[in-house]
Amino acid sequence: MSIAARLDAATAAVLARTQGGDAPGKLAHALHYAVTPGGARIRPTILLSVAMACGDDRPDLSNAAAIALELIHCASLVHDDLPCFDDADLRRGKPTVHKAFSEPLAVLTGDSLIVLAFDVLAEAAGQDARRALELIRVLSRRTGMPDGICAGQGWESEAKVNLSAYHRAKTGALFIAATQMGAIAAGQDAAPWEELGARIGEAFQVADDLRDALYDAEALGKPVGQDAAHHRPNAVAELGVQGAIRRLKDILGGAISSIPACPGEAMLADMVRRYAERMTPVAPAFAAGEPRI
Amino acid sequence: MSIAARLDAATAAVLARTQGGDAPGKLAHALHYAVTPGGARIRPTILLSVAMACGDDRPDLSNAAAIALELIHCASLVHDDLPCFDDADLRRGKPTVHKAFSEPLAVLTGDSLIVLAFDVLAEAAGQDARRALELIRVLSRRTGMPDGICAGQGWESEAKVNLSAYHRAKTGALFIAATQMGAIAAGQDAAPWEELGARIGEAFQVADDLRDALYDAEALGKPVGQDAAHHRPNAVAELGVQGAIRRLKDILGGAISSIPACPGEAMLADMVRRYAERMTPVAPAFAAGEPRI
Repeated sequence: MSIAARLDAATAAVLARTQGGDAPGKLAHALHYAVTPGGARIRPTILLSVAMACGDDRPDLSNAAAIALELIHCASLVHDDLPCFDDADLRRGKPTVHKAFSEPLAVLTGDSLIVLAFDVLAEAAGQDARRALELIRVLSRRTGMPDGICAGQGWESEAKVNLSAYHRAKTGALFIAATQMGAIAAGQDAAPWEELGARIGEAFQVADDLRDALYDAEALGKPVGQDAAHHRPNAVAELGVQGAIRRLKDILGGAISSIPACPGEAMLADMVRRYAERMTPVAPAFAAGEPRI
Repeated sequence: MSIAARLDAATAAVLARTQGGDAPGKLAHALHYAVTPGGARIRPTILLSVAMACGDDRPDLSNAAAIALELIHCASLVHDDLPCFDDADLRRGKPTVHKAFSEPLAVLTGDSLIVLAFDVLAEAAGQDARRALELIRVLSRRTGMPDGICAGQGWESEAKVNLSAYHRAKTGALFIAATQMGAIAAGQDAAPWEELGARIGEAFQVADDLRDALYDAEALGKPVGQDAAHHRPNAVAELGVQGAIRRLKDILGGAISSIPACPGEAMLADMVRRYAERMTPVAPAFAAGEPRI
């Protein structure tokens, strides 16, 4: 079964559990709406790729870990889109949850998805309580305070930002969770997998900076030049376009060499290379060498 | 050590974990602010009372369960107070989190507290993974969808409300979690403890209805007559004051007879009787037999 098919089937099974019995209808609908159809599902795809590279001897546990991680990511998007944060109208080409339902239902949707993520892992423990508990510990650490995406978002309320802590928590945390949870689900130590996740997260950050500086709003589907407008740190402003692209390649090279020895090492290196190709921006402004910064 | 002292020490240890390292300062402060000083801490007190009645052979796990439950309760208060729900200015005699900090920080505080609750349970697993996983399952079920307090809050967005599902989820869920988690932490089956939690939850609901109908705003510290004003179901409107008081006594009698056989059965019955005394309203309006409904 392909990774996408595994994720589809496991997602449907998990969502069904939230819809049964005496569930209030709108909130049940909002949960479904926030999770399907999925976006690129990069984090759970990395997670399952790592699990498969490590032998994937408990595929149901790997699936549960992948879904749990994606639920946390979806919860963060629903809350980040709220009027008090980004006040976004659109997400994945459709109205955001608070626009389609209401602001109270969007808050409750995010809350319910966070709870569901931990429920999925506890329910999947089956005969391997140790792995399930370690998955819960890694996911909670990379989601909450002081190191997870909540902390990353929290930095945006500070007058003085610790930039490395900010990026590590906001972008890096769930990529580290992806590689480590994939390894844990397949019975491997988590520690050697931290660097791969951290480097993929860094690469996504630089790629995002390049897109923000190079693309136009139509191509990107969101406003551009936001980093410059908000005086936010940006790798392109710091290193120039070519410098940022060299930095992206360096990070991805480092990511590949950080892959721990495992049966699927070559397959994982290929995966990182494929992401690298997709992440490196190709746009008219870039081709002409005239970044919009 | 008294229950209050156990809760104080365990809460301080848990909060310290969120404040370390590179935590963003305001969010770290907001987490502390939302949890301390505690309110009545009725749910964790019931949880520890049940654990002690069952032998409390793993007090660290019982403490973790009690704190996790209280963190979920605090998270629900922070989110319920948000402008899009109750828009409350005060909680436990001080400004609500969104008033004292900001709305984004209040959303993140609730999210972080939910995550922390599951983290605390996973970290406390120690040598008893089975109990820890069961605690996580019960807490997630009584917090999320379709049966937990998120579902209870979700009912308030429905045009047609399933009243019994609404009360069971909104008020009952965390009391059921309290009795069941106390039993699980001490190595007992959860199932026989559901009724005690459900009945204590029902009693709180009727007591709340009585207070809403009988007390004045000054005594209650919040607006009164809200059920009548919003055409919400209320035991006093349905049964009259004396009828509602008889109902409260019936429920508490049922709660006491539902207590499963255990070494601390008599102590638990005393606890319920003490709560019954505290819950039965004594107010001038009640003494004069003139309910404000």
